[in-house]
Amino acid sequence: MMAMGDNGAATIRDVAKLAGVAVSTASRALGGGSASSRTRAKVQEAARQLNFVPNQSARRLTGRRSGVVALVVDESTNALFQDDFISALLGQLGVSLAGAGLLPFLVLAPPDDAEGFRELLGRSEADGVIVASMHEGHHLAGMLEHLDRPVVFIGRPPGKIKCPYVDVDNYGGGYLAGRRLLERGCRRMAVIEGPKDMPTPYDRTAGFTDALAEEGLEPVMKISGSYDMEHGLAAMAAVLEAVPDVDGVFAHSDKIAAGALRVLHQEGRRVPEDVAIIGFDDLQAARLLTPQLTTLAQPLPDMAQAATEMLEHRLEHGEWKVSAQRFPVHLTVRDSA
Amino acid sequence: MMAMGDNGAATIRDVAKLAGVAVSTASRALGGGSASSRTRAKVQEAARQLNFVPNQSARRLTGRRSGVVALVVDESTNALFQDDFISALLGQLGVSLAGAGLLPFLVLAPPDDAEGFRELLGRSEADGVIVASMHEGHHLAGMLEHLDRPVVFIGRPPGKIKCPYVDVDNYGGGYLAGRRLLERGCRRMAVIEGPKDMPTPYDRTAGFTDALAEEGLEPVMKISGSYDMEHGLAAMAAVLEAVPDVDGVFAHSDKIAAGALRVLHQEGRRVPEDVAIIGFDDLQAARLLTPQLTTLAQPLPDMAQAATEMLEHRLEHGEWKVSAQRFPVHLTVRDSA
Repeated sequence: MMAMGDNGAATIRDVAKLAGVAVSTASRALGGGSASSRTRAKVQEAARQLNFVPNQSARRLTGRRSGVVALVVDESTNALFQDDFISALLGQLGVSLAGAGLLPFLVLAPPDDAEGFRELLGRSEADGVIVASMHEGHHLAGMLEHLDRPVVFIGRPPGKIKCPYVDVDNYGGGYLAGRRLLERGCRRMAVIEGPKDMPTPYDRTAGFTDALAEEGLEPVMKISGSYDMEHGLAAMAAVLEAVPDVDGVFAHSDKIAAGALRVLHQEGRRVPEDVAIIGFDDLQAARLLTPQLTTLAQPLPDMAQAATEMLEHRLEHGEWKVSAQRFPVHLTVRDSA
Repeated sequence: MMAMGDNGAATIRDVAKLAGVAVSTASRALGGGSASSRTRAKVQEAARQLNFVPNQSARRLTGRRSGVVALVVDESTNALFQDDFISALLGQLGVSLAGAGLLPFLVLAPPDDAEGFRELLGRSEADGVIVASMHEGHHLAGMLEHLDRPVVFIGRPPGKIKCPYVDVDNYGGGYLAGRRLLERGCRRMAVIEGPKDMPTPYDRTAGFTDALAEEGLEPVMKISGSYDMEHGLAAMAAVLEAVPDVDGVFAHSDKIAAGALRVLHQEGRRVPEDVAIIGFDDLQAARLLTPQLTTLAQPLPDMAQAATEMLEHRLEHGEWKVSAQRFPVHLTVRDSA
C-alpha cells in the first residue's frame, strides 16, 4: 500500500510515484500544462487508480480550507501583460496550483487598489497568496505584511519583508554566459546591462566578470539601462563606436539582444561569426529572431512548482518546510553564440 | 452642472468630458494603462474635481453590486499565457475594467474545472463575466449558457450561444494587406494561412483575395496550417520552391511571418526589396524582428473598452444597449512591406 496524504487521500506525489514521473511532470500533465500524450495518459491512469481528483472540488472539501490561492503582481495591469516573463510565470503558477488541486486566481486591478484587493481576497476565502513579481515592489508590501494568511514570494522580497521565497541564480547565469563566449573564442566582450539600481543586473554582471577573470580578461565595456530593445539599439551602437573589434556581447535581456542584433545586422556584422550574442530570459521572441538567440532560461516550471509545494506544505502542516529556494538558470544554445 | 450617473456620482464619461479626452483614454489613464504624463495629469485633475474615485471601493458600495467582474478564457492555463495576443487582451481588459471602478479577476484553472470556476464565481459575487477567447470554445459553453449573470464575449461566441460580443473585421484586415502589397508593386503574392477549419483565416484570405481581384490578380499560392513559426518556415520554403519569383507574402500571424523571414534571409532574399511581408496581430515580437514587421494590429484597447462599457451599461440599466460591435484592424507600417 502506498503512503497517502494526511487524510488518506492520494497526493500529487503519490500519483507521480506510481506513474514513474517527476512531481512537476505529473502536476503539468494534470493541470493542463505541456506534456506528451503518452506521459499525460500515464499520469491520468495513475490518478484514476489512486482516485486522485485534483481539478474538482474533492480536495477542496477535505478540510476547512477553501483551496483557493490568490496570485499578486505588484505591477500595473498593463505592464504585467506586456512583460512576457511575468505572464509566462503566471501561466506556470496556474498550471502548478491547478495540478495540486488548488484554484488559483489573479486580481487584475492596479496594485495601489489595496482595498479592492483585500476585499476580493477576503471574499474568495483564499488560503494563501503567491506574489509573482521579480521587481522591488512596495505598494502592496504594507498590506502583505499584515495579512492573516501565508505568503510566498517569487523573487527575493523587498528588504524589510520576511517571507519565504523562490529565486534564481543570476550570478550563475552571468557566469555561464561568460564561459560560453570564452569557449567560442571571444576576447573582447561587452555587457549591455539592465537597470543600475537593481540587484539582478548587478549579480548577472558579477558572474560574467568573474568568468572572464579566470582567463585574465575583463569586459571591454559595460552600459546599463532599461531591459528594452531601445537600450539594446543605443548601447550596441555605442559599443561599436568605442570598441569596433568587439567580438562578444552579453545582453541582460532578450529584448536588449534583439536591439543589438538589429544594429549588428545594419552594420554588416555577421552573428555569431563576427560578434556572438547571448541574451537572458528565453522569451518566445528568442526563437522568432534570426539568428535564433542563445540565451539563459529561467526555470519557470520548477520555480512555480516549488512555490506551490512550499505553500501546500504550509497549508497542510501549519509550518514552513523551507524558507528559501534558489534555482539555477540554464544556457539554451541556439544560433547567436 | 454636468450630467451625472444614476446616483449622482460622476462616471468615467463625465471625467473624460471634463478632461477633453476620449472615454477610453480617461479609462486608461486612471486604470494604470499607457497615457502621456500630461494626459494622465489632466484626467486625474478632472477625476479630482468630480470626486470620481474609481479604484477604491466607493463605487462598489453604491449599490447591491459587488463591482467584481470575472474574466474567463477557454484555454489551458499554459496556452493562455503563451499566447501573446490573449495575454495582451487580458491586460487591456484589466485596465478598462479597473478604469471603470470595477475589480476584475481571472480564474487560472483549466477550463474543464467548471465546478471550481462556478464555486469561485459564486464566492466572488461577480456581477458579470467577460469571456476573452477568440477560439471556438465549448468546454465552458454549457455553464455560461445557464449563468445567472450577464456575459460578454470577445470574439463571436460559438454557434449555439447567444451572447453580446465584440469582434474585429478580419476580412477588412486581409483587404488592407492586399492593398498594401499591390501599392508596393507586388504582383506574385502568396498567402500563408492559419488553420483551415476556422472562420478567422477564411475571412482574412477572402479580403486579401478580393483586393488582388481589383487588379485582376489572384494569390499565386495558399498554404494553410497552424499560426506558429514552424508553419511559416515550411510554407515559405514550399512557396520559394513552387514560385521562385514570389514578391509578396501575407502571413496570417506574426509568428508565421517570423518563420518566413528566416527562410528568406537564409535564401539571400532581401525583405522588403525582393519579397515584402505583412503579418497579423502586432505582437511585441513584431517590433523585435529585423526588419521590423509591417502587420495588422487588432485594436485591443478599443475592444476591451467596448466590452467593459457593454457590461457596465447592462449592470447599470438592466438591459443591453448593443449586442455586437465590430472593430476595424489597422495596418501598422514598419519595414517589411
